[in-house]
Amino acid sequence: MVVKVYGPDYGHTKGVILCLIEKEVEFQTVHLDGFKGEHKQPEYLKLQPFGLFPVIEDGDYVLYESRAIMRYYAEKYKNQGSNLMGKTMEERGLVEQWLEVEAHHYTPPIYNLIKMYFGSVLNGEAMDPKAVEENEEKLGKVLDIYEKRLSETKYLAGDFFSLADLNHLQFTSYLVNEMERGFMVRERKNVSRWWDDISNRPSWKKVLQSYRNVYDALKEMK
Amino acid sequence: MVVKVYGPDYGHTKGVILCLIEKEVEFQTVHLDGFKGEHKQPEYLKLQPFGLFPVIEDGDYVLYESRAIMRYYAEKYKNQGSNLMGKTMEERGLVEQWLEVEAHHYTPPIYNLIKMYFGSVLNGEAMDPKAVEENEEKLGKVLDIYEKRLSETKYLAGDFFSLADLNHLQFTSYLVNEMERGFMVRERKNVSRWWDDISNRPSWKKVLQSYRNVYDALKEMK
Repeated sequence: MVVKVYGPDYGHTKGVILCLIEKEVEFQTVHLDGFKGEHKQPEYLKLQPFGLFPVIEDGDYVLYESRAIMRYYAEKYKNQGSNLMGKTMEERGLVEQWLEVEAHHYTPPIYNLIKMYFGSVLNGEAMDPKAVEENEEKLGKVLDIYEKRLSETKYLAGDFFSLADLNHLQFTSYLVNEMERGFMVRERKNVSRWWDDISNRPSWKKVLQSYRNVYDALKEMK
Repeated sequence: MVVKVYGPDYGHTKGVILCLIEKEVEFQTVHLDGFKGEHKQPEYLKLQPFGLFPVIEDGDYVLYESRAIMRYYAEKYKNQGSNLMGKTMEERGLVEQWLEVEAHHYTPPIYNLIKMYFGSVLNGEAMDPKAVEENEEKLGKVLDIYEKRLSETKYLAGDFFSLADLNHLQFTSYLVNEMERGFMVRERKNVSRWWDDISNRPSWKKVLQSYRNVYDALKEMK
């Protein structure tokens, strides 16, 4: 059964696709245009009542929320492709801890910065410098904690690549590449080493080559 | 080995304690006073670098982020106490989906309302009616999706109680009891039925009886 993944151009969906590539799971993508509100149409809302990307269909099984989908496939194909959850229950606990840190501490400020930046690209208006500063400060504090952690272990959850690392790729890539905020990564030695490592994984290069991103879509809309 | 749980008076920690009670895991609590900044002291930051509750110590194993801790114990004691993750991989996927919904859609507006309300209790200042309205509207939309879901299944992830339900107790209880916003639950038939069910679990009654809550602490500080 080929997994159907809705909305491959969007950040959270890219995390799911990355996971499926790492786990060597066959999938097909269903393109929907968020700018045209295709994720707010009744047919889509039957699959995902919040009207958000992504959702997957795997035969009759429908699942949404990117991190839940990633956990499901990491578990279902435990012995196939990359091991993304660690080997022991204790390692898995740490994967979950750092995935929660990503969700609640890392991604919110980076996502705010992306929204402001993309808004400014689309509207040609300057970003609110106070809001930028606040979010950069929040993100910087989180990165300081990452720097310390990554001076002790190769990856966030330990000396093994996991879902916790993987789910930083899609938004950090915007920060480093499109938004020219790479210095936030580069001025921290271990974060920089970690970023070079994870962003050079073949799975991420494949995602970058295969799917559009919201930034490119925005530039075309201008 | 008795599990040590730090900061039992705080909402996210109560979710962990509830989980430990449901799983029949022995634990002891370490009281720290957040109002005195005891969670920002160097000793605590060694365990939890973000300076937040909770963190657990289980022998040498240290873990933070409440949902990560709950998953760890639900898995570690799979065949002990209540089954909180469903029986199949597909059920577990849905538990994770609704736990993510709780984390990203349900708890943020309710948490904003709690912060505003508790602030007003402490300072005696009126809450910003526009901010209250915005957050109640967001929460109401989520509850409408819950209402539909709970008209089809007994609990969020299916016809079984799970971590996804459990982790709604601590903050919804403030909404219904301290904040007199019970109508948001009561005006939705299936949400109301679900709330009566989960809030009558012996584990939750034990938590309410055994630990202080932030609201009571605030009232004493006035």
